[in-house]
Amino acid sequence: MHFISETSSDGVCEQLFVLNEIPGVLWTPEGAAGTRPLILLGHGGGQHKKAPDILGLARRFVTECAFAVVAVDVPNHGDRPVDEKYNRIAVENQARIEAGEEPAPLIAAFQALVAQQTVPEWRTVLDAVQQLDHVGAGPVGYWGVSLGCGLGVPFVAAEPRVRAAVLGLGGSLASGADAARITVPVEFLVQWDDERVPRDQSLALFDAFASADKTLHANPGKHGDMPGFELDSSVTFFSRHLA
Amino acid sequence: MHFISETSSDGVCEQLFVLNEIPGVLWTPEGAAGTRPLILLGHGGGQHKKAPDILGLARRFVTECAFAVVAVDVPNHGDRPVDEKYNRIAVENQARIEAGEEPAPLIAAFQALVAQQTVPEWRTVLDAVQQLDHVGAGPVGYWGVSLGCGLGVPFVAAEPRVRAAVLGLGGSLASGADAARITVPVEFLVQWDDERVPRDQSLALFDAFASADKTLHANPGKHGDMPGFELDSSVTFFSRHLA
Repeated sequence: MHFISETSSDGVCEQLFVLNEIPGVLWTPEGAAGTRPLILLGHGGGQHKKAPDILGLARRFVTECAFAVVAVDVPNHGDRPVDEKYNRIAVENQARIEAGEEPAPLIAAFQALVAQQTVPEWRTVLDAVQQLDHVGAGPVGYWGVSLGCGLGVPFVAAEPRVRAAVLGLGGSLASGADAARITVPVEFLVQWDDERVPRDQSLALFDAFASADKTLHANPGKHGDMPGFELDSSVTFFSRHLA
Repeated sequence: MHFISETSSDGVCEQLFVLNEIPGVLWTPEGAAGTRPLILLGHGGGQHKKAPDILGLARRFVTECAFAVVAVDVPNHGDRPVDEKYNRIAVENQARIEAGEEPAPLIAAFQALVAQQTVPEWRTVLDAVQQLDHVGAGPVGYWGVSLGCGLGVPFVAAEPRVRAAVLGLGGSLASGADAARITVPVEFLVQWDDERVPRDQSLALFDAFASADKTLHANPGKHGDMPGFELDSSVTFFSRHLA
């Protein structure tokens, strides 16, 4: 784990790092010492580890909960090099969708492929970050919607350190079998008029979680219209389960 | 409006009253003066104005938000006299359900009948309570699930003073047409395995609200299993919309 820079503002310390060629960012309370809960944030498709919504949420977890927060770029996103393998599939999928194929199964298969890479990457990130004195081996939460849900469901299923997860804007095609292995508390976000994820597939993914403590929040609007008060709810949810 | 008793404990003043022969209770912050938001709580079937969940929620709105809270007994509940008209229908319905009829339409028709009485009663309660110096004509919220939803939907539809509502554990048969007249923010609670309200009818009622700002919270379990953290969410919801 190689730190590139460290800056602080308004009580939040931000450290950029590279770990096994994966660019990442760690946010902690300024002057933090000792073990604390850690949230891994999974960004959306076409976004990156410091996209505005990720950055805003990270700062809230740090300032309101005194948690540590980490995010890394997904392959082919942010500061990572272009991966021709993924690009080729994306181009093929686009052509198939334009030819009339249903997008959902294509997206699901693509996310499942990328998850084969990101699940071990993210586990390595946890290993490294939890060795830092100002993070430590506290309880871990995962937050990710859209692509962050497609990659997050297999990650949460695989990683016993994760004690609670906010997921959403994803459907059962992507990750139904992995969802059935998840038993930790889940808050699941649905956009009621999602143009990318059919409603029945969203509800089927919620049904698939094996968690006894799971809660579904649905709001009107399209894929990109998630209301800001759901971020308040994410903060409350992780405060309840990790603090 | 005739006050019967006034007691205070832990910062909450509780006043029992009778208004047009309707027994009610008003909770306000101890020593309150001046106008404040007011929540009307609608109790569930077989419950009453001081049932434990109603009382607990009322105290939270008072102590955490400094709101005023009012609840009255629904006809044939609590301290109200037996009404043979409703009793007769309840007995008839029970016999029809035992003979194999679907309960949901019978319950819906019964609640619609009771609402013809409770909507004007509750509007009169608002009139009276809002004339008190320590309540005043501030914004009004409505909270009610189960019977409190069946009676609450027509009330919220009819009463322009209501600016936000928490409703749930109810279905479209009860009140779909009234729901289409509701435009204020709604938080709607669904028990995912509700044995009394079919899931599709719950989702249809959520769909029916005309509110641009509406949010659905679904949790696993039966009609009576609503998790306690939804009450935290109700407090947050009304704080956001009324405070």
